[in-house]
Amino acid sequence: MRIIDIINKKVENQKLSKEEIDFFINGYVGGEITDYQASALLMAIRLNGLSDEETAYLTNAMMYSGEVLDWSFLGKTIVDKHSTGGVGDKVSIALCPILAALGLTVAKMSGRGLGHTGGTLDKLESIEGYNFLLNDQEFKDIVKEHNIAIVGQNTKLVPADKKIYALRDVTGTVQSIPLIASSIMSKKLATGSNCILLDVKCGNGAFMKDIEQAKKLGKLMIEIGKQLGRKIAVEITNMEQPLGKTIGNKIEVLEAMETLKGNGPKDFTEIIYSSGSTLLMLANRAKDEEEARKMIKEVIGSGEALAKFKEWIKAQGGKVELLEQPNWFNPKYKYEIISQNEGYLKIKSAIDFGLVAMKLGAGRAKKEDGIDYEAGIYLNKASNEYVKKGDVLFTLYSSKPINTELEKELIEAIEFSEQKHDIKEVFAKLF
Amino acid sequence: MRIIDIINKKVENQKLSKEEIDFFINGYVGGEITDYQASALLMAIRLNGLSDEETAYLTNAMMYSGEVLDWSFLGKTIVDKHSTGGVGDKVSIALCPILAALGLTVAKMSGRGLGHTGGTLDKLESIEGYNFLLNDQEFKDIVKEHNIAIVGQNTKLVPADKKIYALRDVTGTVQSIPLIASSIMSKKLATGSNCILLDVKCGNGAFMKDIEQAKKLGKLMIEIGKQLGRKIAVEITNMEQPLGKTIGNKIEVLEAMETLKGNGPKDFTEIIYSSGSTLLMLANRAKDEEEARKMIKEVIGSGEALAKFKEWIKAQGGKVELLEQPNWFNPKYKYEIISQNEGYLKIKSAIDFGLVAMKLGAGRAKKEDGIDYEAGIYLNKASNEYVKKGDVLFTLYSSKPINTELEKELIEAIEFSEQKHDIKEVFAKLF
Repeated sequence: MRIIDIINKKVENQKLSKEEIDFFINGYVGGEITDYQASALLMAIRLNGLSDEETAYLTNAMMYSGEVLDWSFLGKTIVDKHSTGGVGDKVSIALCPILAALGLTVAKMSGRGLGHTGGTLDKLESIEGYNFLLNDQEFKDIVKEHNIAIVGQNTKLVPADKKIYALRDVTGTVQSIPLIASSIMSKKLATGSNCILLDVKCGNGAFMKDIEQAKKLGKLMIEIGKQLGRKIAVEITNMEQPLGKTIGNKIEVLEAMETLKGNGPKDFTEIIYSSGSTLLMLANRAKDEEEARKMIKEVIGSGEALAKFKEWIKAQGGKVELLEQPNWFNPKYKYEIISQNEGYLKIKSAIDFGLVAMKLGAGRAKKEDGIDYEAGIYLNKASNEYVKKGDVLFTLYSSKPINTELEKELIEAIEFSEQKHDIKEVFAKLF
Repeated sequence: MRIIDIINKKVENQKLSKEEIDFFINGYVGGEITDYQASALLMAIRLNGLSDEETAYLTNAMMYSGEVLDWSFLGKTIVDKHSTGGVGDKVSIALCPILAALGLTVAKMSGRGLGHTGGTLDKLESIEGYNFLLNDQEFKDIVKEHNIAIVGQNTKLVPADKKIYALRDVTGTVQSIPLIASSIMSKKLATGSNCILLDVKCGNGAFMKDIEQAKKLGKLMIEIGKQLGRKIAVEITNMEQPLGKTIGNKIEVLEAMETLKGNGPKDFTEIIYSSGSTLLMLANRAKDEEEARKMIKEVIGSGEALAKFKEWIKAQGGKVELLEQPNWFNPKYKYEIISQNEGYLKIKSAIDFGLVAMKLGAGRAKKEDGIDYEAGIYLNKASNEYVKKGDVLFTLYSSKPINTELEKELIEAIEFSEQKHDIKEVFAKLF
């Protein structure tokens, strides 16, 4: 088998066999296939596409390019959720302890943020002592004892994805539905979960701008799951606006905790109920959405969800007691943006909120950048709230003096109208 | 300007500007743009194409990526011809001295052969002493004095083509009409000729298998010439069968000499007349094909063409007197293939003749391979000749013992029929 023949086959728009796709992935990870040959094949895939079957082969080959976690010793259903990333996306931090409190097992790997999208790992790291670098045995022990752990990406898992993603990033081959699907799915499948909820964020603050493309991606991932024997559900959720009222790290952790106490903002709470019930149904713990929502309401109302959150953070070394102290989130600088206008608020562009949060220090412009855990944005007014002149719209926080030019960027990302506008939290659920 | 944006633009099927194409070529030759980014862009071009204008920009950028020869000091029209390569293609060796004898100036660079296609340079090198490594001054001096020189590719010319061609070869991006056109044209234009005949070989023994594709390539090269101010003519010629009765190196040189004496095989002689008259018209030396053919006939008949050949070979150091000795071509081994059949001969596959010649030692399987100048094939019977059982069909020559298995390969590449079949030498002429 020769890589040049495989490239030519894809150029001619023919289907690649499992053996050919395995040959490519093994050869590329092994170093026998060069970057320039891989990039030619990826571009041919970007332009000519892959069938569902080829995408499943690719996902499978990538998944087995490194270690694959095995949770069979637990004899339990392992659930996982993955979000394609958005602005203010703290869903995992609130949802996972709810699921664990309801008896599901969550063994999750999370990533860092880049650009306007935050990363769950960064948010958790803002909790002093939280250790995401567990070794295999520690990870297994904590999951066994507490039904929940969230760790960093294990570098021994899916080396093919790391190598391919880095190449796609610089060769114009990122925007390919089959390549996106195989990247997400190979990583999720390698962590060994059986039931996976994929939250495809859609809107200008997300990777997928267009709902039809998001559906295509969702359906493809469900199909890959079927072919590789895993249960997959997909939710396509709104990322036209930031999720919740907070963007940042510590500030988002606190909002997630408030939500576990039943005091979360409406939009974020709705996503938690929606995603939670989807996973409860997928794992056969609830017969319908109504029952599932009731179960979630109960563990929040009883305090079990919050207790599970604290138990989990503590188990991974986090100083959870600090979170209850009023000065845990204590940014040195604060800047309030005052409204010069009146009307119902509409946030036009989530991405600009993500970028301003990044510029305040809450995110990274480059992979190597550090993070200011105090930095972030609080939305004193949310979409569809009525705003009067002189009201505080948003509050910016940082450990460094705040560039007041950022005000302009946020003002340009909003508008005011005389009427409320429709906001949907969940665009579609796919099973 | 960033290469990633240029790649994305081509992925989105948008036209690239002159500045963007210059940026790519300069950056790639300069080493700032990586192989994997170049290969991604080349694949996007392979699949999404380039407009005629973009192809002219690319040709121009490649041409100026290195030195460009300047013959203006001669104050003459410089003619050149280029063949896309075939089996038994010794056209340049016979045609160039004819043109020079008719007062045109030929300053030509030729390449080596690879695979089933022979290279003019290899054939000329089979003449003891022939020096193709002239420095700039020697090249200019010989052209000035003799109106003709054929040298090897100057490595200072068109470095972009060398780098891009090597990459295309291993990334499935060879079969792209705009990339083929810009590769051929940039090399030809950099040698400084004003009138260029491009002989696009078509058929199973050629790079272009399909006449429509060959026409597309031809028209595109004429268009590039127009945009860059050079006169281009294109002939699409038959490469279903080997050209002439010989395939090899020394054996082809002798056939070219015989043709200059007026004793060449019919098909090869016709190509010489056709190509020669096209160039005479393109350079305004003949008003029509009839006049041009007459001029060629005269310099062959008078011996001037052969004399010019000898003068040229001698000027470049070749021991031309050896060529007249009966034992100059003197292979140690010889194997005659005897016909078991009867009928009019039809050669179905020129490529197989090229491959057998290569296996005999006349060509290279890999770039690094050496060449046996004695090796080759003589076609005792040509297409449309009537063959009886027991007739010698072909004779194989080599300096090494001949693998008799090769007989089978040639027998499978021919067939016999009760009637003659149509053979056209020139499929189309485009101006």
